[in-house]
Amino acid sequence: MSFKLEAKDPGSKARAGTFTTDHGEIQTPIFMPVGTMGTVKAVHQRELKDDIKAQVILGNTYHLFLRPGMEIMHAAGGLHKFMGWNQPILTDSGGYQVYSLANNRKITEEGVKFQSHIDGSRHFFTPEFSMEIQRQIGGDIIMAFDECPPFPCTYEYASDSMDLTHRWLKRGDSWLKENPPLYGHEQHFFPIVQGSVFPDLRKQSAETIAKLEAPGYAIGGLSVGEPHEDMYAMCELVCDLLPEDKPRYLMGVGTPANIIENIALGVDMFDCVMPTRNGRNGMIFTSEGIINIKNKKWELDFSTLDPNGPTFVDQEYSRAYLRHLFMANEYLGRQIASIHNLGFYLWLVGEARTKILSGEFSEWQRHMIPKLQTRL
Amino acid sequence: MSFKLEAKDPGSKARAGTFTTDHGEIQTPIFMPVGTMGTVKAVHQRELKDDIKAQVILGNTYHLFLRPGMEIMHAAGGLHKFMGWNQPILTDSGGYQVYSLANNRKITEEGVKFQSHIDGSRHFFTPEFSMEIQRQIGGDIIMAFDECPPFPCTYEYASDSMDLTHRWLKRGDSWLKENPPLYGHEQHFFPIVQGSVFPDLRKQSAETIAKLEAPGYAIGGLSVGEPHEDMYAMCELVCDLLPEDKPRYLMGVGTPANIIENIALGVDMFDCVMPTRNGRNGMIFTSEGIINIKNKKWELDFSTLDPNGPTFVDQEYSRAYLRHLFMANEYLGRQIASIHNLGFYLWLVGEARTKILSGEFSEWQRHMIPKLQTRL
Repeated sequence: MSFKLEAKDPGSKARAGTFTTDHGEIQTPIFMPVGTMGTVKAVHQRELKDDIKAQVILGNTYHLFLRPGMEIMHAAGGLHKFMGWNQPILTDSGGYQVYSLANNRKITEEGVKFQSHIDGSRHFFTPEFSMEIQRQIGGDIIMAFDECPPFPCTYEYASDSMDLTHRWLKRGDSWLKENPPLYGHEQHFFPIVQGSVFPDLRKQSAETIAKLEAPGYAIGGLSVGEPHEDMYAMCELVCDLLPEDKPRYLMGVGTPANIIENIALGVDMFDCVMPTRNGRNGMIFTSEGIINIKNKKWELDFSTLDPNGPTFVDQEYSRAYLRHLFMANEYLGRQIASIHNLGFYLWLVGEARTKILSGEFSEWQRHMIPKLQTRL
Repeated sequence: MSFKLEAKDPGSKARAGTFTTDHGEIQTPIFMPVGTMGTVKAVHQRELKDDIKAQVILGNTYHLFLRPGMEIMHAAGGLHKFMGWNQPILTDSGGYQVYSLANNRKITEEGVKFQSHIDGSRHFFTPEFSMEIQRQIGGDIIMAFDECPPFPCTYEYASDSMDLTHRWLKRGDSWLKENPPLYGHEQHFFPIVQGSVFPDLRKQSAETIAKLEAPGYAIGGLSVGEPHEDMYAMCELVCDLLPEDKPRYLMGVGTPANIIENIALGVDMFDCVMPTRNGRNGMIFTSEGIINIKNKKWELDFSTLDPNGPTFVDQEYSRAYLRHLFMANEYLGRQIASIHNLGFYLWLVGEARTKILSGEFSEWQRHMIPKLQTRL
């Protein structure tokens, strides 16, 4: 059993646990920085480990398949060795990026034909091939190849898509059983619940998925444009149906407030490009609220980014300095913002865990949510 | 006396010494990373200090005057506090950038009128105003406002320009004597030798400059397109005329081989954008030669960047990984290359110093120069 449930919050459905991989433990609830192409943008690996305190990072199968490609990845001995990161890695299945980035994609029962967004080269991802790529990348947690329906979509589309995702799940699972890992460490396979914003489809998907004895379960197809209320409703519905003794991973979510709200509904794992992407555009998430560092009001503010900031950038750089770097379009501005935001996200989920373990989560949540949404 | 000459190489004119400032000691020969706008591009301050082992960095008066501007700089308490760097800083006078970057610049006896390369705003730099800006920035070493003649230029142009530089030197020096530093630490004022590639002008300029009792002397107007032989000839001529007990700073030079050759001629201090700018384009300087990391030959090379590399990037990242980052246009590639190259430059001048102190510099120089120029 790779997951140990350690505590449940008395005032909500929040949980704390530990997921064990061959590259180390992941203490939940956890946020996973996104390392799209084998790098969390603008952040050194040692900063991820020592400053941000990342416990697990994400790699994107679609991006890594295109660059550097699987010949180099396999020769390197997998992504851990290639990028110099010996803690846990999770890879997605490539599906989501194929739908959102690739050109001329065509979905059939067999899989998805698409052209690379980089050079137009033609490729064909099947559930089996996605597993093969994920074996070559060598993530500690690997994801089922699913279809992520757009929002909004019709009930019929969502239903057909969910059925396809379930059939693809079986194919991926079968392939994995016949093809062991390549690098000597275990790869934990997570199936994905779909069903758009339709409660009965979500219920059907969660029940179908839950039947597969898996080390963890993911909730996909949310945070794709639907209202937050729909996201929370679907999330709660699904968490209530998934096995209690396995971690639940909500894919692609979200703002700091989204994360806390979903932790309260029983989610254990999160990933999102927001702290890095928005950071590179000058949005700084802090324990007191959100800063647009390009705003003139910070021009002469020589205080630190965040009085509770856990990383060195909070101690060493001022708001005025960071604003200057953004106004001058300097690399260091994006680097500082990325480290700060990721450090803050990891601090936030760490605080949530501490409060769950001490039974104070609900009170802390009520106190934090309004602050997290304040525009400073 | 701020400079202590500690050793002279028996086989060349190379020297080792220590220059003491209120922000710490500078052990020469030294290379100074260029922090144009209050940041050495793509490098954190703690990386400069702890990994690269920079002892002094450069700020550009022209750039800092335009962004963030002197209101913010002064309110911050100077550049050390603004950027969070409490070791020595040297600022140039702004002259060189005015000539090379600004639009519609017009040089008169009084000073230089120009338009900002950023927004076309009009400004007027005089020798006095350059000193005033440098007081506000607060560098530990500040530079005379000079004219840097283009290469090639006529003897007459070079001669008139040199005379102007000498008159401007007196004006800057007088202004400084009447206007003390703003932040409580000493600012050492270095005059600059000009004279293009004309030996008699260089001699005249060096002798004129040497008469001013200064804590150090700079050699300007080289590395502007002239043949290397001219640079070395002018450098040797000038070094032989400057006081032995003061440091000599060759501005804007250069390749690793250039630096070693000029150390052998008696130069103590260097700055150049090459390690960072060329690094950001994929040129990696190593102890075995120069690597173009974008070259396909590194695609499957999982060895470290430089077997003698002194910084963490040499231990943690492979050539294949760095190539991937450059091919994918990732920030981290530029960050790694910048840290590596600066670490290498500092390692190189540190080795030169060690060899001077042990009397082995000339032998080491003969051994190193061909390696430094090898294309790997």
